[in-house]
Amino acid sequence: MQKFEIHIIGCGSALPTPKHLPSCQVVDVRDKLLLLDCGEGAQLAWRKTGLSWQKISHILLTHAHGDHVFGLPGFLSSMGLLGRTAPLYVHGPSSLRPFVQCVVAQFCSDLDYEIHFEAVDTTRHQLLFEDRSMEVWSLPLQHRVPCCGYLIKEKPGQPHIRREMIDFYQIPNWAINRIKAGQDWTTPEGEVIPCSRLTTPPDRVRSYAYCTDTMPSPPLAEWLQGVDLLYHEGTYAEAEAALAERYHHSTARQAALLAREAHVGKLLLGHFSSRYDDESVLLREAQEVFSPTLLAHEGLRITP
Amino acid sequence: MQKFEIHIIGCGSALPTPKHLPSCQVVDVRDKLLLLDCGEGAQLAWRKTGLSWQKISHILLTHAHGDHVFGLPGFLSSMGLLGRTAPLYVHGPSSLRPFVQCVVAQFCSDLDYEIHFEAVDTTRHQLLFEDRSMEVWSLPLQHRVPCCGYLIKEKPGQPHIRREMIDFYQIPNWAINRIKAGQDWTTPEGEVIPCSRLTTPPDRVRSYAYCTDTMPSPPLAEWLQGVDLLYHEGTYAEAEAALAERYHHSTARQAALLAREAHVGKLLLGHFSSRYDDESVLLREAQEVFSPTLLAHEGLRITP
Repeated sequence: MQKFEIHIIGCGSALPTPKHLPSCQVVDVRDKLLLLDCGEGAQLAWRKTGLSWQKISHILLTHAHGDHVFGLPGFLSSMGLLGRTAPLYVHGPSSLRPFVQCVVAQFCSDLDYEIHFEAVDTTRHQLLFEDRSMEVWSLPLQHRVPCCGYLIKEKPGQPHIRREMIDFYQIPNWAINRIKAGQDWTTPEGEVIPCSRLTTPPDRVRSYAYCTDTMPSPPLAEWLQGVDLLYHEGTYAEAEAALAERYHHSTARQAALLAREAHVGKLLLGHFSSRYDDESVLLREAQEVFSPTLLAHEGLRITP
Repeated sequence: MQKFEIHIIGCGSALPTPKHLPSCQVVDVRDKLLLLDCGEGAQLAWRKTGLSWQKISHILLTHAHGDHVFGLPGFLSSMGLLGRTAPLYVHGPSSLRPFVQCVVAQFCSDLDYEIHFEAVDTTRHQLLFEDRSMEVWSLPLQHRVPCCGYLIKEKPGQPHIRREMIDFYQIPNWAINRIKAGQDWTTPEGEVIPCSRLTTPPDRVRSYAYCTDTMPSPPLAEWLQGVDLLYHEGTYAEAEAALAERYHHSTARQAALLAREAHVGKLLLGHFSSRYDDESVLLREAQEVFSPTLLAHEGLRITP
């Protein structure tokens, strides 16, 4: 399988604690990196991942609340100080434009790379960008302010070569990439060996969805159908359901109901309220509804 | 002696490292707190000091470089989330006004306290504000952008009561505060006991100066004459003196030359370049010039 890995940098909520940093994670799709949200302290915690700043092409922000963006100024500055030259695309609701523009104007004017802000329409589920490896889609969320999640879908890779068939037909190395790309092979005797006999199908494509912050939002179940891994906020336990409703957040159980309805592969809970010293209550309440549920934690690496 | 204590929260420079947070410290004068600079991560590190957010009345910023201000948005937000209601005064060069305004407008509009930005004239050494306990003065510094340091001077406390004299003259408790405030005491027999016989003089007043970031600046020696404790950047060792000059910073030795010329009590070096795993070279080079020199470190508590 090709690389598709999520690194959790922070999965706390509004108040950072010694246990949890605010929201931030990295998605590594075949060595192309996306940063999802950028809470305070992200730049320092990032270094523990061992990943290269140079490989970040896009930063995807969900909304204009501090615990999702206060690490951005430092992250942008330090990338510049460490020699970044490639342009960077920062996506997020248009309400974040003034903050990003202010930071770029005041603190990034002497850096050697360009920063482009791309406003995301938080009311539409649509393709934002793609490359050879992935598609990135927006997911409308329902929070106190305009907010969107992100859905990252792998693109199909190439079929796998069947080494024993290559050996049997004595096919030279220069032909391998053509066969992977779908060409049949013609032997010196003129026999046509169909590509399908020389290869096995590509790996299944995987998908990851990042949904925070949001109250339960019915359309999500359709957009998330069959997603392999869903990170969803489970800020509160059921005992605090009234708080969840008041602040437009979800309980862990509500996240699990969505995961079940959307038939996702696994649910990863995060954005934990600082009131829980022990989040096992959140895990338990979610697993009652949807058993393949996990708790996020700083330093977790997970594959969809 | 009454409380006058400095807590070092961060003493690194542009790039945060696992060893050093960017610039931030707290000055505690008789339980009134000033925050000096506010680098990223300050709010989390602050909690380790055990100090109360409610007691911060002023935040003093030196200049518009990220390693001195990127913790401000999170600090302001978290104080609000934790229930602050008292107004807060943020002082700094006028170049910081757009950043502070942008952060306040976008992230602090629903908080229950007011944030006032007060521009500091970085070209003048002048009294900025005072209360019963202290005076706070600006110190013009020379950096790549407008920059100022801060000088905090204790105000004289009250004289100390001589308990044995109070007992001897059987002076009642209600008269103690009057005597501390300078009144003489008249005995029932009509004898006037001068206040000076009933008290010993107040503690000596102490002073603390915070000077970062700056290249050597001749007028400082006059303004800092006799300061008890001087925190001064010593970003580089002598081997990197060319870098110090290029980026308008100081070497540790240059800080020590100033400390010697100004006859300060102690020199506390900080704002260390991330290039030094071991800062003992900075200490050694400074102590060759001015022996009462110390290195700052995160968690240090020191009294002028």
